[in-house]
Amino acid sequence: MAHDAPVSPLAPKSVPDVGPIEGVRFATAAAGIRYKGRTDVLLLALDEGTTVAGVFTKSKCPSAPVEWCRDNLPGGLARGLVVNSGNANAFTGQKGREATALTAKIAAKALGCAEAEIFLASTGVIGEPLDATKYDGVLEATAARLAPLPWIDPARAIMTTDTFPKLATATASIGGVSVTIAGIAKGAGMIAPDMATMLSFVFTDAPIAAPALQALLSRGVTDSFNAVTIDGDTSTSDTLMLFATGTAEKRGAPRITEATDRRLSSFRKALTTVLADLAEQVARDGEGARKLVKIEVTGATSKRSARRIAMSIANSPLVKTAVAGEDANWGRIVMAVGKAGEPAERDKLSISFGGIRVAHEGARDPSYDEAQVSTYMKNDVIDIQVDIGLGGSSDRVMTCDLTKEYVAINGDYRS
Amino acid sequence: MAHDAPVSPLAPKSVPDVGPIEGVRFATAAAGIRYKGRTDVLLLALDEGTTVAGVFTKSKCPSAPVEWCRDNLPGGLARGLVVNSGNANAFTGQKGREATALTAKIAAKALGCAEAEIFLASTGVIGEPLDATKYDGVLEATAARLAPLPWIDPARAIMTTDTFPKLATATASIGGVSVTIAGIAKGAGMIAPDMATMLSFVFTDAPIAAPALQALLSRGVTDSFNAVTIDGDTSTSDTLMLFATGTAEKRGAPRITEATDRRLSSFRKALTTVLADLAEQVARDGEGARKLVKIEVTGATSKRSARRIAMSIANSPLVKTAVAGEDANWGRIVMAVGKAGEPAERDKLSISFGGIRVAHEGARDPSYDEAQVSTYMKNDVIDIQVDIGLGGSSDRVMTCDLTKEYVAINGDYRS
Repeated sequence: MAHDAPVSPLAPKSVPDVGPIEGVRFATAAAGIRYKGRTDVLLLALDEGTTVAGVFTKSKCPSAPVEWCRDNLPGGLARGLVVNSGNANAFTGQKGREATALTAKIAAKALGCAEAEIFLASTGVIGEPLDATKYDGVLEATAARLAPLPWIDPARAIMTTDTFPKLATATASIGGVSVTIAGIAKGAGMIAPDMATMLSFVFTDAPIAAPALQALLSRGVTDSFNAVTIDGDTSTSDTLMLFATGTAEKRGAPRITEATDRRLSSFRKALTTVLADLAEQVARDGEGARKLVKIEVTGATSKRSARRIAMSIANSPLVKTAVAGEDANWGRIVMAVGKAGEPAERDKLSISFGGIRVAHEGARDPSYDEAQVSTYMKNDVIDIQVDIGLGGSSDRVMTCDLTKEYVAINGDYRS
Repeated sequence: MAHDAPVSPLAPKSVPDVGPIEGVRFATAAAGIRYKGRTDVLLLALDEGTTVAGVFTKSKCPSAPVEWCRDNLPGGLARGLVVNSGNANAFTGQKGREATALTAKIAAKALGCAEAEIFLASTGVIGEPLDATKYDGVLEATAARLAPLPWIDPARAIMTTDTFPKLATATASIGGVSVTIAGIAKGAGMIAPDMATMLSFVFTDAPIAAPALQALLSRGVTDSFNAVTIDGDTSTSDTLMLFATGTAEKRGAPRITEATDRRLSSFRKALTTVLADLAEQVARDGEGARKLVKIEVTGATSKRSARRIAMSIANSPLVKTAVAGEDANWGRIVMAVGKAGEPAERDKLSISFGGIRVAHEGARDPSYDEAQVSTYMKNDVIDIQVDIGLGGSSDRVMTCDLTKEYVAINGDYRS
């Protein structure tokens, strides 16, 4: 584990000040799931009436906690969340299912709710049995210490190879009443669209019915978490959940039952901000990352096509190593556009780094100044713009560079 | 350029003894395309009546030489081949097309044939104009030195970041007459299915009509070059060509016009051997590679599904870094199976390294001895077997590990 790795140079300069969400309390503990004496479990309690939405990995081999959450999501109600780091409880067969059932049972007893109202997430090594009996007593003791602050504690508790805790917050207005959104995330490696080894939990006091909440989350993820890739590897455990305690209703906020409700416009925007913020922090903490890479594709024949081309660039090891080497190697961008298999014509393609156009209409831009681009490539954040020149659709994705440190971290993770 | 990189530890222990192919002669030269005083061009002459087949990159932004070859392939006849290293003549627009036309013109004059009978391939940097006037005089002088041996010369002339020349040969019998196949290849990085920055040229004296030759090549590539991936990056320049001089006809070999002709069975097998041998050498010379990884997927619902799962494993940076770290991290194999999006069920999956089963029916194999597997992982060649447990289809692909050297080579290629 790379817990002692230096903090990513791309880490935000400060941790946001995240206030309490009424109806959400939490505490962390060391349950000894994998390591002794290290905080490795988060217990989070939600007030009665909290609604829930979730988006999970598209892996055909999902972890036991992902299956547990999927099974219980249709109930629409949540009272507790248990997250452990160190063991993903993935590919653990019947034992894995027994471990989730036992964890939920212990947590439900500790929080005084139904087992189906407990949601679970695990991250860490795949294929090792998780001994849920270790939660016995621990979750009960942890439940006695629940508090609404500070958010840095749960953000830290869910970290694995992350080098900094990830928090984001925003406020919105529903029917003239202020509501708050707070979220935490973990990422690092195995990050790809469709939710890689990424866990994120977002909370709000807004009163929104579960089906509407689900629609908001499913839409919100497209241009945030699903637009981020570190290594193209999708984990078995990816989980993004949104919990709405509804406590703002007491302060006069109207209860929203439809995602199309116009009173949600401010909330939708704030949710997008929080999700995009967390997703960017995940990219900024890509394993071994030294540069954040923002890729914008314009002039594509459809948004879907723009996304595929952008992801082809973002997942190309040759593009990512070139960025690591501070080399504006636009030939590799051409390669990545070409291999995406989407409509593209060499003679209509333009490529820019940080607004400096290096290639235009199928050839090197004659006015391109290599020294100027080389200076630009020394920046922490690299913008790559690709214009396909065929249509009116665009998209943006984010990734990081591929460094020797990525190889070092992942060549020695289990030992 | 990493020409001075140490030879891959996976290089074959000896260079095969490749004999002459009647009707094929070649010479190399230093034309100063990119570097001064280095052999960077191969001129190869083919006797009149030579038939030709080709398979090219599926990139939507192919290089000018690829377009040239595609345009001239329907003629079915070849008299010359010009290959340069150092400049890919890709994304060079109208200038690129002019460079191919001029190269073909100079070569046709040097060899005394039609321009449409000249085939071209270029490899190296993308986006820089190729000055074909440098061939003027050079190709004519080179044509005066044509010889049928030694094959190591053309094999070396087409290298870029390759650390060893790649040659293969085999013999076959057509209608009781012995025919020979000889091939050369270059690879290294940007290697993915559908012909990455890979050039390969294969020659035979067998008399086979162009349409039949094309059918043989298109079929032969599926389980050889298209079953190899280094980094999932597909180049703009990938070219595999098969030339048949037909000179064995003088020795009594029957002229074959249909790919389904039963008299081709020995030739087909020999061709597959040569293509598979060259493809494996390309994998063994993957940039920074320290281990060759052979992935076999069985029990899939279709060959196509098995291929996709195998490629998902082969292209996973997390699997490849684990192999580099000599870590039998089968959790990452599970991840890669899961993300392939193909039919798979956790509870039916089995995974073995070198025949040692580590995971079975959705969980860690209880009899799995980590020390035994760790010892196995120190080998140069790693066999990964994955049984999906759902059907009767299987497939095999090859890749290499992902090391810090890959990042170093590709983070500093242009400079």
